[in-house]
Amino acid sequence: MPELRKDPVLDRWVIISTERGKRPSDFLEKTEEIRDAVSPFSPGNEEMTPPEVYAVRPSGTAPNTEDWTLRVVPNKYPALEIKGDLNRRGEGLYDMMNGVGAHEVIIETPEKDKDLGELSVDQIKDVLLAYKNRILALKKDARLKYVMIYKNKGYSAGATLRHSHSQLIAMPIIPKRIGEELQGAQEYFDLKERCIYCDIIRQETKDNIRIIHEEDQFIAISPFASRFPFETWILPRKHVSHFEEIETVETENLAIILKTILRKINIALQFPSYNIVFHTAPLQMAMSKSYHWHIALMPKLTRIAGFEWGTGFYINPTSPEEAAKYLKEIAI
Amino acid sequence: MPELRKDPVLDRWVIISTERGKRPSDFLEKTEEIRDAVSPFSPGNEEMTPPEVYAVRPSGTAPNTEDWTLRVVPNKYPALEIKGDLNRRGEGLYDMMNGVGAHEVIIETPEKDKDLGELSVDQIKDVLLAYKNRILALKKDARLKYVMIYKNKGYSAGATLRHSHSQLIAMPIIPKRIGEELQGAQEYFDLKERCIYCDIIRQETKDNIRIIHEEDQFIAISPFASRFPFETWILPRKHVSHFEEIETVETENLAIILKTILRKINIALQFPSYNIVFHTAPLQMAMSKSYHWHIALMPKLTRIAGFEWGTGFYINPTSPEEAAKYLKEIAI
Repeated sequence: MPELRKDPVLDRWVIISTERGKRPSDFLEKTEEIRDAVSPFSPGNEEMTPPEVYAVRPSGTAPNTEDWTLRVVPNKYPALEIKGDLNRRGEGLYDMMNGVGAHEVIIETPEKDKDLGELSVDQIKDVLLAYKNRILALKKDARLKYVMIYKNKGYSAGATLRHSHSQLIAMPIIPKRIGEELQGAQEYFDLKERCIYCDIIRQETKDNIRIIHEEDQFIAISPFASRFPFETWILPRKHVSHFEEIETVETENLAIILKTILRKINIALQFPSYNIVFHTAPLQMAMSKSYHWHIALMPKLTRIAGFEWGTGFYINPTSPEEAAKYLKEIAI
Repeated sequence: MPELRKDPVLDRWVIISTERGKRPSDFLEKTEEIRDAVSPFSPGNEEMTPPEVYAVRPSGTAPNTEDWTLRVVPNKYPALEIKGDLNRRGEGLYDMMNGVGAHEVIIETPEKDKDLGELSVDQIKDVLLAYKNRILALKKDARLKYVMIYKNKGYSAGATLRHSHSQLIAMPIIPKRIGEELQGAQEYFDLKERCIYCDIIRQETKDNIRIIHEEDQFIAISPFASRFPFETWILPRKHVSHFEEIETVETENLAIILKTILRKINIALQFPSYNIVFHTAPLQMAMSKSYHWHIALMPKLTRIAGFEWGTGFYINPTSPEEAAKYLKEIAI
């Protein structure tokens, strides 16, 4: 059973996946290649993954047969496990609990060589609906406090398989970073009685120097304090705290802007490795006036060094204004 | 002039080094090679670096001549610049200031192919004394609030030069991560009237399952909530908040334990890339009963993916108990 351990000074939780139990020799065979001879995510290889928990497939076809266009399956090597209770406990000044949670893989397309940005708007919409539906399903489990949706594309962004997929981890705690966002947004709200993200959208629209692309319901910007070159945020114009509240009609507009941004990034940076992270309110939290869900996309262009680890702050060699100007001008 | 920008939600500062001004094409030529044909840090190449600000060299030799055993020079491509005033200002809801500070390189040895762990105890002691003396010098500048000492070894840990060196960034703010450590330690102190790090040393000594190595004045452990496989902390047994208070006699014992740990890591993991970060109290803060300086050493074995970026928490595939046992048993 994986273990969740809390740093006693920082209140930061770490997953110790003791069952993977990597010894030094496991780290020595470093290959920078991503396995892709046989994709366990390809149609026909359904038996190579745990049974699907969600799929987009023609009605009448049986689960785990090959006629799907999207599948969600439990991760074969889960960081957290769905069975068992939390068993919160201490050991002297240390706190820990069982690594209870869910770890799922969203296989975005049957085609193993396409990037998410190369899928059709309808396919991307299906991916977004899969996220929404899985969150709604997991929300019923009262042990789970947060669902993190993320995508690692390419070796240097942490992917181990080339076939386009994203992941979801449902966890029994609210991660520190999200807790800080919630708190920062709440403090701003207490002071101004306005959502800080709504104010950011307002100021960015007025300044018009960090906007990359606009759609009816969404806006894409280079954030003012970007940590990474070409970091991009996508925010809904409408104030909503929880991503899973997205309406089907809005997923189409979100699919359009996400595809647009990915195409611009793929053109500008020649299909870089990247990470996408969804920032959304905790599962069991009521609708919030201060928090505003959004998506962060980070091309992996720089290496993170000791300085960043030690201080938690970042050196970014490309200003967000330059990044936005560049991406904005790219015709797609 | 580089710019310091504050994330309006998280109070996290980012350095935007606008003068480096990297455009997309600058990121495309990715070479995984570290330049080392000609080392700008080798004796005889002193003119390839800015003039030294500190050196260990035979008395009577002129600065920037080649008879040195250690040099400290300003970074040729500094993230922060020493001249100018902070000019704190706002732009709507955003806050920023000039990137005032110092960025220096500690060239640890004249020999370009040796790892820090391969230097003699006396050489490592000189490196530690250089850190101390540079902090004491920079402490006189009232604009500077924090000095971060760190080392990036190897390409995947962020190094751009092979020749063994560490770096120092003196900055006009206290980084968020350090602020959180100070606060966490203070909260524990308020509750218990004891230093949490002293309590950690006490518990680790009693439990004896995460100790890697002990010396008279220092202890090396795998921290309970290790973020990374084989992450190692070195703590002084004596409660001191500021590294720069270290006495010369203690630097010898610290050099011994640091060399021991590096040799064990280099044997176990075959000279991996790694980062070292010094955690110490802010320059202008009075001696503190709650904070306790320490060193974190992180071999770079795993890739950091979207999940970690998004949540600020980490999945570690090797338990600290296994890591400590393994490293402890390695004979050096």
